[in-house]
Amino acid sequence: MTARFAVLGAGRIGQVHARAISSTAGASLVAVADALPAAAEAMAGTYGCDIRSIDAIEKATDVDAVVICTPTDTHADLIERFARAGKAIFCEKPVDLSIDRVRRCLDVVDQTGATLMVGFNRRFDPDFIASKAAIDRGAIGKVEMVTITSRDPGAPPLDYIPRSGGIFRDMTIHDFDMARWLLGEEPTTVLAAASVLTDPRIGELGDFDSVNVILRTGSGRQAVITNSRRASYGYDQRIEVHGEKGSVAAANTHESKVQIATSDGFRKPPLLNFFMTRYTAAYANEIAAFIEAINAGTAPPTSGEDGLKALALAEAALLSVKERRAVEVSEVLGR
Amino acid sequence: MTARFAVLGAGRIGQVHARAISSTAGASLVAVADALPAAAEAMAGTYGCDIRSIDAIEKATDVDAVVICTPTDTHADLIERFARAGKAIFCEKPVDLSIDRVRRCLDVVDQTGATLMVGFNRRFDPDFIASKAAIDRGAIGKVEMVTITSRDPGAPPLDYIPRSGGIFRDMTIHDFDMARWLLGEEPTTVLAAASVLTDPRIGELGDFDSVNVILRTGSGRQAVITNSRRASYGYDQRIEVHGEKGSVAAANTHESKVQIATSDGFRKPPLLNFFMTRYTAAYANEIAAFIEAINAGTAPPTSGEDGLKALALAEAALLSVKERRAVEVSEVLGR
Amino acid sequence: MTARFAVLGAGRIGQVHARAISSTAGASLVAVADALPAAAEAMAGTYGCDIRSIDAIEKATDVDAVVICTPTDTHADLIERFARAGKAIFCEKPVDLSIDRVRRCLDVVDQTGATLMVGFNRRFDPDFIASKAAIDRGAIGKVEMVTITSRDPGAPPLDYIPRSGGIFRDMTIHDFDMARWLLGEEPTTVLAAASVLTDPRIGELGDFDSVNVILRTGSGRQAVITNSRRASYGYDQRIEVHGEKGSVAAANTHESKVQIATSDGFRKPPLLNFFMTRYTAAYANEIAAFIEAINAGTAPPTSGEDGLKALALAEAALLSVKERRAVEVSEVLGR
Amino acid sequence: MTARFAVLGAGRIGQVHARAISSTAGASLVAVADALPAAAEAMAGTYGCDIRSIDAIEKATDVDAVVICTPTDTHADLIERFARAGKAIFCEKPVDLSIDRVRRCLDVVDQTGATLMVGFNRRFDPDFIASKAAIDRGAIGKVEMVTITSRDPGAPPLDYIPRSGGIFRDMTIHDFDMARWLLGEEPTTVLAAASVLTDPRIGELGDFDSVNVILRTGSGRQAVITNSRRASYGYDQRIEVHGEKGSVAAANTHESKVQIATSDGFRKPPLLNFFMTRYTAAYANEIAAFIEAINAGTAPPTSGEDGLKALALAEAALLSVKERRAVEVSEVLGR
Repeated sequence: MTARFAVLGAGRIGQVHARAISSTAGASLVAVADALPAAAEAMAGTYGCDIRSIDAIEKATDVDAVVICTPTDTHADLIERFARAGKAIFCEKPVDLSIDRVRRCLDVVDQTGATLMVGFNRRFDPDFIASKAAIDRGAIGKVEMVTITSRDPGAPPLDYIPRSGGIFRDMTIHDFDMARWLLGEEPTTVLAAASVLTDPRIGELGDFDSVNVILRTGSGRQAVITNSRRASYGYDQRIEVHGEKGSVAAANTHESKVQIATSDGFRKPPLLNFFMTRYTAAYANEIAAFIEAINAGTAPPTSGEDGLKALALAEAALLSVKERRAVEVSEVLGR
Repeated sequence: MTARFAVLGAGRIGQVHARAISSTAGASLVAVADALPAAAEAMAGTYGCDIRSIDAIEKATDVDAVVICTPTDTHADLIERFARAGKAIFCEKPVDLSIDRVRRCLDVVDQTGATLMVGFNRRFDPDFIASKAAIDRGAIGKVEMVTITSRDPGAPPLDYIPRSGGIFRDMTIHDFDMARWLLGEEPTTVLAAASVLTDPRIGELGDFDSVNVILRTGSGRQAVITNSRRASYGYDQRIEVHGEKGSVAAANTHESKVQIATSDGFRKPPLLNFFMTRYTAAYANEIAAFIEAINAGTAPPTSGEDGLKALALAEAALLSVKERRAVEVSEVLGR
Repeated sequence: MTARFAVLGAGRIGQVHARAISSTAGASLVAVADALPAAAEAMAGTYGCDIRSIDAIEKATDVDAVVICTPTDTHADLIERFARAGKAIFCEKPVDLSIDRVRRCLDVVDQTGATLMVGFNRRFDPDFIASKAAIDRGAIGKVEMVTITSRDPGAPPLDYIPRSGGIFRDMTIHDFDMARWLLGEEPTTVLAAASVLTDPRIGELGDFDSVNVILRTGSGRQAVITNSRRASYGYDQRIEVHGEKGSVAAANTHESKVQIATSDGFRKPPLLNFFMTRYTAAYANEIAAFIEAINAGTAPPTSGEDGLKALALAEAALLSVKERRAVEVSEVLGR
Repeated sequence: MTARFAVLGAGRIGQVHARAISSTAGASLVAVADALPAAAEAMAGTYGCDIRSIDAIEKATDVDAVVICTPTDTHADLIERFARAGKAIFCEKPVDLSIDRVRRCLDVVDQTGATLMVGFNRRFDPDFIASKAAIDRGAIGKVEMVTITSRDPGAPPLDYIPRSGGIFRDMTIHDFDMARWLLGEEPTTVLAAASVLTDPRIGELGDFDSVNVILRTGSGRQAVITNSRRASYGYDQRIEVHGEKGSVAAANTHESKVQIATSDGFRKPPLLNFFMTRYTAAYANEIAAFIEAINAGTAPPTSGEDGLKALALAEAALLSVKERRAVEVSEVLGR
């Protein structure tokens, strides 16, 4: 069986998904929609698919699934529309920046019985998969502590910051999802500290660039997340999980595995410093997992609920910084 | 000039210092005192020094300096006695488990003008020295974030725990000192989470075995400390400092630098798993720094004030756990 | 411009090239030929190309270039035919197992002015490219010594060995090419030692499984090649180049970058152990370089001459083993 | 029991041994002899031992053992004298530069029944010991190939070269001993290539600075040795042993375990670049093994025979370079 796709939004990440869909057995790219004609035409030209409006895709009988790569503030509406239209939906994180809006959207998904996958690309990185597999086969025994280090090479454009939802919702959200996945138990308490160290204009916009977060689960497992919007040496993406029998750690990805030794010492190159290069395999695996779920009729590996819970941790972290206290996730998650 | 030493307490750590003193140019070991005659005799036999009472050492004219390696609850009293006796004093951390008692003791040291060094051995580890030197020469620019991972191979004997002062005062205190040293700025706020994950009896004694702490300085620099009383793979001791221009990290010390490759993969041996083996060079460097300070008439590199401030961070962390909030160091440090 | 390709031989390596051609801008796959109808049909089905006979491809006006992936003993004949037919030719190494036959074949290529690229995939590996680039930009100064370690996970099927030409022509030939490339100067003298250590049947077939070779250039630069047909830990592929100012080394590629620490030590996974997985990127880069050369009308990066010279080093090594002496390359290369 | 030592030759290496002897339980330093009064006085002052003539030490009844650290051309004579005097003898390698002279000397040792240890310090390096132990416990199965990389930071003073015996006898001799030890079987055939690449004056003195050697044992095991008198990045000392079940490798020793990451990449410091610093632990272990052998009445771990066989490999390598052929060790070793 071949799942027939439409891509909504032909920007950077849309192109990544289009390439993956068109080169995956079991999937075909039928249509693209984008408000910018040039972007849509470029994608249509490369992959030989139609250019259509979102309305047309919604009504199309030759489209089984949509991949939503439009701006964040359109995500929840589009999910609801396509859920009602009976399409399978892959949506880039986040569903929305507001927990209430996410809830209402997921209610619609539930009522329609639609298939929804929210993209958390890191869960599909080969090294993180291998780490999780080692944990799941008992290599380190019961998980005790998770350490996630995540540093961007640089801050996003300043004009993006006000609509990003802030560092916790925009950047740390990936680490919150990783922490939930690796802890194997839901965090209940959040402690966070936040600073502006790399650019005072980030602070003037009400955001932070350097944060540390401690998550604690009901049984006492803990995760620590360290984030910075600055890393001179590339895109720093590490996880380490400590358990009763040992520890598992995934190392960073350098530009090459070449080491040069001189009188100055032994030098390895910087890390891959663009997230789409660093996570090339992860993006391909992610969409493959969605295709596989559609074709098999199973639940996708990352759900709307995963998107909601990561967002709740972000809100709790922000509240912890503001009120200088430990925050219960239930305070922000409500019901 | 040769500084003449007496060692108070001929136990494990006393022996380490005795060996260092007796093999260092500029120092000689004159006497040992220990409540256990066998311990004192063993040390006297090995190094050819006298066995004397603490009273006799206090009055001796052929002793310039004492090294206090007795149980923690005797430290403050002994520091005061020997400060008044005009001896230079090296005391193993902590001065005392009570901030008030430490304050009173340091007041006596101030009034007498005595030389006091409080032992924080890790500052003298060659790899940590090289890390700090790299920071000080500007290799990573302004410091932003410090990450300290410190895991013991196993918990101390359960009967030690009640008199240890708890994990923050007993174990994390070393990391608090490292954090202060590496941050280059005094932490003002402490957030901590604590769990019992390795042995429920530790919890029954009112202590924890797994903790994470976030420290924040006035300008927003942050340090994260991760501690566990369990590490199957040896004594885990890592630091990483992130700055505006890059990052410096000191790796762990394995039993050897041998790697074995088989069909199971590539295996390096576990870490050195005894603190005295891991920090052999650090202990030697530490006492050498004390000897050098005495002989040069300069202030020792780690002071009573350092002991006090690390203890204050421990108290603040404990309060943060209890009250589930960010704690200002000034709350516990008072004046 | 789009170069139109035919693939001769639809086996394992032919499929790799077909996939690369069909996914590269500037190239299209027009036809496949294979003596086995099923193999040809599978490739035609996957890529939507024609199935044709070699004769038909030779005469085709819609084919600009051929990729020869047939058995070794057909290579020289096919190169000559397609050179005369005016097609650009990519041929898997070796051109032939006989130096004389290679010479005659290259003479035809010269006379016809055909474009010929002989496939030495390793030159296109990203880590080896980065190593060579470091050398070329002067990072280690003048090259003095090259060390190449190349170990296969296991021996080829025994029935392949008699037609393989022996380990020097079949396996070491890749390392001879790498050595020439990295030395930056032609080797003139060869010393070799060879043993049978992994399977006595290899010796019964007149071949070896464990060899070491020293190459020496006119100015005294040296290369050492270490080969084994056995490596329990995966496909071992390392290079190290030592120069007056330092050294450059490319590390092996593990199955993942995950390390697991337990009481047994720190374990990384084995190496990728299949050459086509290990060199996935190299194969893609290689055919891209051929396409680029055709479209630009320039000489391909690896030539028939490269094939000849690597083969000459193999013959010299074999002669060195037999006669237990240093062999001049000119002895085997003649004119 | 305490073995009473005299050190003959109070130079750099004599001082290393004196320090080790004086700090080892079971040994005491009684006397030193040196043609330079200042050198003898310095050692006597540091360790509180006598200054005596070699004659006096030969006749002394309070000396059980001598450590010969005088120039190479005195070794054989001194060994013979002290063997006849009934002293246990530790002699720095080599016994002599001439195989015949070594043979005659060892004959005297045999006739007198004296205890003789020839110093091959590398066998006592903790990482190499751990490697050998892994091999001996079967971690890699039967040994097939040994790879030894040994590069000095720089050439010795030019005036030393003529009396050094050449690079094979002076430098590679350590690697020949390591190869014998790690192969677990005596090499029978030697192939070598040699160049002058770092300084033409070395060539003018008839020596080489860059060599590669292949050793082959009777059963076909092989060792490759790579030597250079130049390494910009420190003292390069690596071993790797490949066997039927896997491989064991000992990594180099860096100045520290600190890594600095910046936009230029990840930098580790150069290697320890002075042999006495690199092998500090090895020298201490070596003399401890000699003391232990004396006190236990057992054969020392490295014998005069070891010295002879390493020298024979050096001569065979030199002959291989000169005659451009494989040389049998029996050709140079005679009987």
